[in-house]
Amino acid sequence: MTDETSGLEQVREALTDLAIEDNASIVKQKSRDFFWYSPVLKKQLDQVTGDLVVTPKSEAEVIQVLKACYAHDVPVTVRGAGTGNYGQAMPLAGGVVLNLAELNAIKEIGPGRVTCEAGALLSAIDEAAKPSGQELRLHPSTYRTATVGGFIAGGSGGIGSIRWGGLRDLGNVIRARVITMEAEPRVLDMTGADLAKVLHAYGTNGVITEVEMPLTASYDWVDVIVAFDAFMDAARFANALGVQDGILLKELGVISAPLPHDYFLRHRKYLRPDQSVCVLMVAPFAMPALAAFAGHWKADIVYRSDTADAEEKKGLPPVFELSWNHTTLRGLRVDPTITYLQILYPYPDQIEKVEKMANLFADELPGHLEFVRFDGNVTCFGLPVVRYTSEERLNEIIRLHEEAGCPVFNPHRYTLEEGGMKQTDEQQLAFKREADPKGLLNPGKMIAWDDPDFDFAADGPFLFHGLK
Amino acid sequence: MTDETSGLEQVREALTDLAIEDNASIVKQKSRDFFWYSPVLKKQLDQVTGDLVVTPKSEAEVIQVLKACYAHDVPVTVRGAGTGNYGQAMPLAGGVVLNLAELNAIKEIGPGRVTCEAGALLSAIDEAAKPSGQELRLHPSTYRTATVGGFIAGGSGGIGSIRWGGLRDLGNVIRARVITMEAEPRVLDMTGADLAKVLHAYGTNGVITEVEMPLTASYDWVDVIVAFDAFMDAARFANALGVQDGILLKELGVISAPLPHDYFLRHRKYLRPDQSVCVLMVAPFAMPALAAFAGHWKADIVYRSDTADAEEKKGLPPVFELSWNHTTLRGLRVDPTITYLQILYPYPDQIEKVEKMANLFADELPGHLEFVRFDGNVTCFGLPVVRYTSEERLNEIIRLHEEAGCPVFNPHRYTLEEGGMKQTDEQQLAFKREADPKGLLNPGKMIAWDDPDFDFAADGPFLFHGLK
Repeated sequence: MTDETSGLEQVREALTDLAIEDNASIVKQKSRDFFWYSPVLKKQLDQVTGDLVVTPKSEAEVIQVLKACYAHDVPVTVRGAGTGNYGQAMPLAGGVVLNLAELNAIKEIGPGRVTCEAGALLSAIDEAAKPSGQELRLHPSTYRTATVGGFIAGGSGGIGSIRWGGLRDLGNVIRARVITMEAEPRVLDMTGADLAKVLHAYGTNGVITEVEMPLTASYDWVDVIVAFDAFMDAARFANALGVQDGILLKELGVISAPLPHDYFLRHRKYLRPDQSVCVLMVAPFAMPALAAFAGHWKADIVYRSDTADAEEKKGLPPVFELSWNHTTLRGLRVDPTITYLQILYPYPDQIEKVEKMANLFADELPGHLEFVRFDGNVTCFGLPVVRYTSEERLNEIIRLHEEAGCPVFNPHRYTLEEGGMKQTDEQQLAFKREADPKGLLNPGKMIAWDDPDFDFAADGPFLFHGLK
Repeated sequence: MTDETSGLEQVREALTDLAIEDNASIVKQKSRDFFWYSPVLKKQLDQVTGDLVVTPKSEAEVIQVLKACYAHDVPVTVRGAGTGNYGQAMPLAGGVVLNLAELNAIKEIGPGRVTCEAGALLSAIDEAAKPSGQELRLHPSTYRTATVGGFIAGGSGGIGSIRWGGLRDLGNVIRARVITMEAEPRVLDMTGADLAKVLHAYGTNGVITEVEMPLTASYDWVDVIVAFDAFMDAARFANALGVQDGILLKELGVISAPLPHDYFLRHRKYLRPDQSVCVLMVAPFAMPALAAFAGHWKADIVYRSDTADAEEKKGLPPVFELSWNHTTLRGLRVDPTITYLQILYPYPDQIEKVEKMANLFADELPGHLEFVRFDGNVTCFGLPVVRYTSEERLNEIIRLHEEAGCPVFNPHRYTLEEGGMKQTDEQQLAFKREADPKGLLNPGKMIAWDDPDFDFAADGPFLFHGLK
């Protein structure tokens, strides 16, 4: 019996009252996310699995788990719904997968805010908030399955970012309650600037058990698809629409031909193979203004849910499930050989840069843009489909973007740094030193912890020593 | 008996069932607005008065007035609450003042929208919308007294523009119902791009009787005052805060020392004479984020209404009544010799331009900035106080701003063009040809109608021939 096994056994004994799963195939399933979007991560992480899945039903049970694992040096990787695709919640060093799906109470809804446990589904929060005329500002395209804790620990923005910016922006998370990984775990309520310590930290430096999120007015958003003969026309239309301060949008994305026709099977009847589209969520009362704007651009609205009849709408997924990483997901269902990238086209040259990259890569990288507010300006991320040939070519494509001034948030890396700003987040690292002194939380995801001298300028990816 | 008198008499006879006021002093009072902010307009317009004030109680009565005045060639100048300060509602050619104050029904409130008559007070609309958790996006500082019709016919934005841009932006007005000035007045419901024909047209090309406006979520906004030792520090703070997409603000203004201490008498206890301030309206749930942001700037929050006790708050005007033209109004109460200007500091050089002008004019023009979204970017208007010496110097100050790339919306002119873009609005002119063929609506306010060859580049102001 190895030390690790012995540690696990002792943890199991300490947690007999808790819901524990040790069936290997279930544990493996609960150790995975959408990492397989990336052929690179698929190869690296396909065998990753935890040893036990523990599903606490209260904060007290979370504390019980952390105490036991701390005492016996067992790694803990927190998991929401596993809808990430950077391997955020995958337990590279095995140990306990801390599944927060049942810590999902929605505790309080007030004007402009909701308090809920981390495992609450984003869609469940909105359902609970709807009677007060409210909903969350931001959600990923995995709205129906993702948890709020997973979103703020592993995500950055998505639907709603055209209005509200990203999760990193002050005010888009009000409070996070964080449990530390110590002999006596502390319970910390973090607000304001402190939140940066734990947002988008993949649960490497604390376990988020409860959050307070801002709410905004909810509407019966109108799904709209506008079709264009040229990708760049769609991009320019979206770029101009995004700065219309009076037209309330929740989503503003652009997808290049031939993807809409090839991938959006249930919307295919609205589209020709050579059409690029702009997909929108529009407040109902903004539709006359949107129609006026589209008219000015001579743009062709091929679908709008507010005038579609019930029969027509039946079976059509909502527009947000054509956007962000759902575009990629629909692509993978049709053609499993593709992958994708995530790129920032910085303001104010976003359109020039989009056009330059579109010309450079043509159908090797069919364009997909998501417009957002970023530091107060409207610009766009790119989530292009990549017609994947090799890891070498993929890395070259990344290099060509970065050389052109378009930072890549590389979804073919499982570390915080490589998937983010390519540098140590000193604040997150310092907090990890305090909150996880043994380095047991989600090991292998924060390079700064494992290998402070890692050279981001060098060619290769970080390889976590503990990765089995 | 002149023709005009005869026309008036015939109008009066045709309207015996309507509320008509002909007491000269009351008519004169109802013919005025806040034009006296400007020493130039005060001189030009002080004697302006209509001949009759007619106060219709229904759209049918409005039509009755317009028919009668059209038949007898009597000018009609529409009036809301007379809170403009460009002489918008002043009847330069006499005739009928059409007072819409009693056309004030709030007809319908739904998710994201309100339908009401033009004379409804902005504050009354918000009061009616409040039970649904909603309020108007935008209002002027004259919120408690101004009408919605007057706001969209004579205003451009104000409180809320930091989030929503201006009234001219598509989507910030949903629909306007407009009555034409013809033998048989037409009733037109204008939406989308058509709205530009009548918004900010001073009622020169139709009478707005009903509007549909977007609503947004209402909150118990927190009034905040942040004090700085230097005006430019306050300006830079506000400029950085304005692009915080996640911190929900409704107002973001900056007022230079010594104005806050000198003019904000009831807030004086919070301020030193040498302090400049940033005045804010902040969503309650955004206060932790705001505090974090202010902390990062080492900025001193000297007042926040959410922690002030009831006794302390008693007698303090709301922050929005320290902002926009209420800053000027408070100044005029203390020092009637001042006046002001309205300037746009265009993005992205707004801070450099603000600093350049602040250095150039020093205490001759104590700074007052109002941050707004403008074509999707956060920038600021200037509404500096002007320590007025002469009209020549005022014109020189204007010229120096325009030469520095800062367009002036000159509040010392009573015409649409001179107070606006210094050019003909072809769309508004074309609509006036259709909707007011005799040119009876608010005569003298649209230069393009009266003098198509007027030279905006020449020195002098437009002088309306009919001005008595």
